[in-house]
Amino acid sequence: MSKKITSRQENYSDWYIDIVLQAELADYSPVKGCMVIRPRGYALWELMQRALDDMFKETGHQNAYFPLLIPESFIQKEAEHVEGFAPELAVVTHGGGEKLEEPLVIRPTSETIIWSMYKKWIQSYRDLPLLINQWANVLRWEKRTRLFLRTTEFLWQEGHTAHADADEAREETLRMLGVYKTFAEEFMAMPVLTGKKSDAEKFAGAVETYAIEALMQDRKALQAGTSHFLGQNFAKAFDVTYQTAAGELEYVWASSWGVSTRLVGALIMTHSDDRGLVLPPKLAPTQVVVVPIFKNETKASVLDYAGSFYDEIRSEFRCLIDKDENNSPGWKFAEWEMRGVPVRVEIGPRDMENGKVMVVRRDTGEKILSDRGEAQELIRTLITDIQQSLFDRAKAFQEENTKEISSYSELLEFFAGDGGFAVVPWDGEPESEAKVKAETKATIRVLPEGNEEAAQGRLCAISGKAAQHMAVFAKSY
Amino acid sequence: MSKKITSRQENYSDWYIDIVLQAELADYSPVKGCMVIRPRGYALWELMQRALDDMFKETGHQNAYFPLLIPESFIQKEAEHVEGFAPELAVVTHGGGEKLEEPLVIRPTSETIIWSMYKKWIQSYRDLPLLINQWANVLRWEKRTRLFLRTTEFLWQEGHTAHADADEAREETLRMLGVYKTFAEEFMAMPVLTGKKSDAEKFAGAVETYAIEALMQDRKALQAGTSHFLGQNFAKAFDVTYQTAAGELEYVWASSWGVSTRLVGALIMTHSDDRGLVLPPKLAPTQVVVVPIFKNETKASVLDYAGSFYDEIRSEFRCLIDKDENNSPGWKFAEWEMRGVPVRVEIGPRDMENGKVMVVRRDTGEKILSDRGEAQELIRTLITDIQQSLFDRAKAFQEENTKEISSYSELLEFFAGDGGFAVVPWDGEPESEAKVKAETKATIRVLPEGNEEAAQGRLCAISGKAAQHMAVFAKSY
Repeated sequence: MSKKITSRQENYSDWYIDIVLQAELADYSPVKGCMVIRPRGYALWELMQRALDDMFKETGHQNAYFPLLIPESFIQKEAEHVEGFAPELAVVTHGGGEKLEEPLVIRPTSETIIWSMYKKWIQSYRDLPLLINQWANVLRWEKRTRLFLRTTEFLWQEGHTAHADADEAREETLRMLGVYKTFAEEFMAMPVLTGKKSDAEKFAGAVETYAIEALMQDRKALQAGTSHFLGQNFAKAFDVTYQTAAGELEYVWASSWGVSTRLVGALIMTHSDDRGLVLPPKLAPTQVVVVPIFKNETKASVLDYAGSFYDEIRSEFRCLIDKDENNSPGWKFAEWEMRGVPVRVEIGPRDMENGKVMVVRRDTGEKILSDRGEAQELIRTLITDIQQSLFDRAKAFQEENTKEISSYSELLEFFAGDGGFAVVPWDGEPESEAKVKAETKATIRVLPEGNEEAAQGRLCAISGKAAQHMAVFAKSY
Repeated sequence: MSKKITSRQENYSDWYIDIVLQAELADYSPVKGCMVIRPRGYALWELMQRALDDMFKETGHQNAYFPLLIPESFIQKEAEHVEGFAPELAVVTHGGGEKLEEPLVIRPTSETIIWSMYKKWIQSYRDLPLLINQWANVLRWEKRTRLFLRTTEFLWQEGHTAHADADEAREETLRMLGVYKTFAEEFMAMPVLTGKKSDAEKFAGAVETYAIEALMQDRKALQAGTSHFLGQNFAKAFDVTYQTAAGELEYVWASSWGVSTRLVGALIMTHSDDRGLVLPPKLAPTQVVVVPIFKNETKASVLDYAGSFYDEIRSEFRCLIDKDENNSPGWKFAEWEMRGVPVRVEIGPRDMENGKVMVVRRDTGEKILSDRGEAQELIRTLITDIQQSLFDRAKAFQEENTKEISSYSELLEFFAGDGGFAVVPWDGEPESEAKVKAETKATIRVLPEGNEEAAQGRLCAISGKAAQHMAVFAKSY
């Protein structure tokens, strides 16, 4: 195997795809736009799922499962929803050898089928709140796809909650936005901006959409999760009312929120380097790899020494030992670096004689010769350090590439150059937003909390009118 | 709520559906044949998944994810496979507003799409064995459906393994059959028969199919999991070869194996009674429910006493405390029994005064007044006892309803009566098998290990010719 990863400098997009394919995280499938998630990529998703699922359950949610197929007429019940999703639908017209009376669409998202069930389940205020999450596959017919980042079929979770009043539904919307931010920062070591979307960017059917947005190394933003306040839109479309404690009939209020396998793409792009994948230890399927270095005459003793070290640490860390005899140590080091294992332990005959092991950090390449007896504690420290240091590095990168902009010429210059997050006073007009998109490809990623106050007394950098918001613009995935 | 469960005596089929709906395990959806798995049903599936997934990983398997949609031409590449599955396919003809050049089918099972990828991934003997599992939804257009037991869409896992030789693939097939048996018996407390299927009953595309079969309370068999030795059928259909150590090119050998949400139906039917769901503690989402019994004047003190008891035991068991004030204790007892919680702890004012708690078993209804200080240990013992006792009861039922048959009249009588597992000397001829099916609706469920030896010297109960197998016949789901 002579694996070659294009450098970021040379071609950022090829660099990303090279890592995904060479590290065997995913592969192209024979079905246009659909990928295969290979075991090493799926293991990342499983660790993400586990952490998120725990957080969902801690905040009172339960998992359920709703049908893959949705009657076409359901999608049409909410006006904005159908407009947004109709162009992306896959349609089942035949089943069991016969043409169906009504075509069924494969879920692009499940608001409609879920709210048709909520109508059955919700009668009284005692049935509320209803806090349900689903782990599922969804399908959106995409013209241009990229492994993990945008695929026709993807895996995700979608939370769908029903509440007795607007405030509680809004609170839920923001609570889950917070859960996503915590997950991104504490597990993925990926700093994110949070805030509301402009009307042009919100979910089809939502009253308000909130998002977490991360800055990739090419200085493009990636929307990594969304949380929607749906108002009563779906309750009205599916006639879901409840009886209040006072006996009145009211429409139910709703939120929905989701993250997908796109997060795997975000994780790869946030931390990796020209040698391959770099993973935060909390989500690394293998946290430590032990590589014994031996020749024929030292093989038995080194494997024994390395094997017993491996046995000591395996109950604490997710570990592998690479005893393969077909590849050289140098080849193995490069391979394990490419696969993103956070800590490598090299053990050769001299280490064995001296009671040492060599511990190597994936993120910095730093090598530390450690007494064998102290190595486990060293690794424990490194695991924590690497997690924090990846976050700090990404945070510093985000800050370096976030710029406050005052004038339109400055805005044009920013996006003609390296780009990044541009914090821009905006008059709130769709025309101004559209102008920036047309001329720079940048869109509003979020309107952060407190942005209205921050905009007071400032002039819109696009129109020169009074600014209503400090908007974060960026080119995006 | 006045929940009423039909008795098994009255109508077994209604009894089952009543439990599924009243215990809120699943619900009918607006899409024909597709169900919604509600949170209480999904929690069962999650516990099953977790246990199975651990067992798969312990036996060296990794999870991955393959596309939902399969080009129609792929299904046609293996002759028996297409014959078996073509009538059950759902077909996507349109995507993104356009008619597709080639229709895509929703996976009824994933051999074809997976083997098209294995062709890319397998070159040399070093790439083998390849041991991959997928957790996914699949879809088979069914004419008659029943919640959990047979639905158009269902959730399952499907293992797909590739091996260098036939023996290893056969060994894998039997290893996974063993994993299923262990899971069924140790987690579900559901005794199963294992064995090979007759040709008439095997998977479309397999050389040999093995199954675990359980006996439900209506004495019908339920196929609860299958493991297939696929020979080189899919390797040949998709041209998957590997280079041996000697440099020869050989076709790869395969197995596949799966269990589905049907297991939830099996679990319900194996243990439940006329009062509702009965669950084995290992898979019960709630193992212990604490029900404080109070009036206005005792409320504060009883809730305090019960709450502190709940706090003591909740780290050891999956627990709930039912502090609801709208329903009477009697209503609550019935409700928690209906939901299948294995152990109920009732705590009233007198218990509090005497330092006692009342512990009630769901399976037998036995009530044990326990010193509060000893209750946690008592519950620990009960949890183990109930698990074992449910298995023993089901095993005894299976044995009582398994009969060795010598003559055809005896066979007819057996299936005209209560039925069960009939162990029948069989000549191995499809005609004899078909005759029994036509006249009694019973089919061969399995040919248990050692059945050929056991048949030696005996005469087929159907044809009178020399018996080749001792076959287990039963009516089935």
